[in-house]
Amino acid sequence: MDDQTSVSAFGNNRNHGVDGSLVVDIYPLNSYSFGSKEPLPFRDETLYDRIQRMKINYDIRGLRTCVEAVILVELFKHPHLLLLQIRNSIFKLPGGRIRPGESDVDGLKRKLSRKLSVNEDETDWKVEECLGMWWRHDFETLLYPYLPPSAKMPKECTKLYLVKLPASRKFNVPKNMKLLAVPLCQVHENQKTYGPVISGVPLLLSKFSFNIITN
Amino acid sequence: MDDQTSVSAFGNNRNHGVDGSLVVDIYPLNSYSFGSKEPLPFRDETLYDRIQRMKINYDIRGLRTCVEAVILVELFKHPHLLLLQIRNSIFKLPGGRIRPGESDVDGLKRKLSRKLSVNEDETDWKVEECLGMWWRHDFETLLYPYLPPSAKMPKECTKLYLVKLPASRKFNVPKNMKLLAVPLCQVHENQKTYGPVISGVPLLLSKFSFNIITN
Repeated sequence: MDDQTSVSAFGNNRNHGVDGSLVVDIYPLNSYSFGSKEPLPFRDETLYDRIQRMKINYDIRGLRTCVEAVILVELFKHPHLLLLQIRNSIFKLPGGRIRPGESDVDGLKRKLSRKLSVNEDETDWKVEECLGMWWRHDFETLLYPYLPPSAKMPKECTKLYLVKLPASRKFNVPKNMKLLAVPLCQVHENQKTYGPVISGVPLLLSKFSFNIITN
Repeated sequence: MDDQTSVSAFGNNRNHGVDGSLVVDIYPLNSYSFGSKEPLPFRDETLYDRIQRMKINYDIRGLRTCVEAVILVELFKHPHLLLLQIRNSIFKLPGGRIRPGESDVDGLKRKLSRKLSVNEDETDWKVEECLGMWWRHDFETLLYPYLPPSAKMPKECTKLYLVKLPASRKFNVPKNMKLLAVPLCQVHENQKTYGPVISGVPLLLSKFSFNIITN
């Protein structure tokens, strides 16, 4: 989008391009530096155990809400999505479950600091708009981007938020995870590798134009 | 979403739910009435002829921009998407190509009136935000929700806009088309029947909560 120029902003840091589309500034991957920190504990449980734990938690707390971050960098003139890889297999957007009473934004900042920051108390993350939501209407079922008519009491909701990076920063990643920058064109519709949530991110971002800021 | 309550609006008719999500009012299908009108002419051409026509038009006018409407009604307590069916086979969102110099909103209103209104000069359509964009970076290629790094000069862009219906209205549909209300759960990921653009609509709508207004 070399010919993209961004014009004046309104509210909530939204820039609009000449064609009225929303413009997001992205910076090259080499604007950022990467270190490691102590590993985060994982739950080592079977699918059956996981479902039992979710059922017990649902009875206590109701709907489980997860928040996940869509964070972009530039590489080879194409937007790349930051993903965490766990145990050399599962890919995840950075994020996690929010606590009862916690706001989405506060919960996401806490999770991002835990998984990506040098300092866990950092709150300096720019959490922008909600891009989309995925619902699990029963413990055993798949995620859907809508609530089926029969689903009176959904069990889990995953909300994706756009998180804008500054022009530079340091990431510190737990030693048992890898942070990867994956091109949008590789993620798109690649459900087999990335699952439905991540593989749908390029479509959720499609209303934006990207303004690549090179140093 | 029976427990959804909408609170005060800001700007651009955006309602926010208690959880901060955007709320869209939708009305039952039986709020609307349907008639027919004279058939619209179709181009009867081969794929080869179509590509030749697009190449000639691109040389004259540059990027071809299409605008399409995402219009929702309620049926069985689930949002349904309005689709036009042509020749008992192809499904399309209502819309079409905008003219050189015409704005997206004006072009979409013109196309909606031509295909759905009693009066072709009607401009009373509530065109809201752009939900997503699909790009064709070469005449022969598929649509993608991003511009690949190699695509310097995209050939076609299709923009999807949310169009909000009033509490009641009449639709008049050309005799050689059918207007269908298809549940989001049937459209989702059903590329084989509906193609990539329509089957991606539920995901593009997933940031919204729907407030079903029954009479």
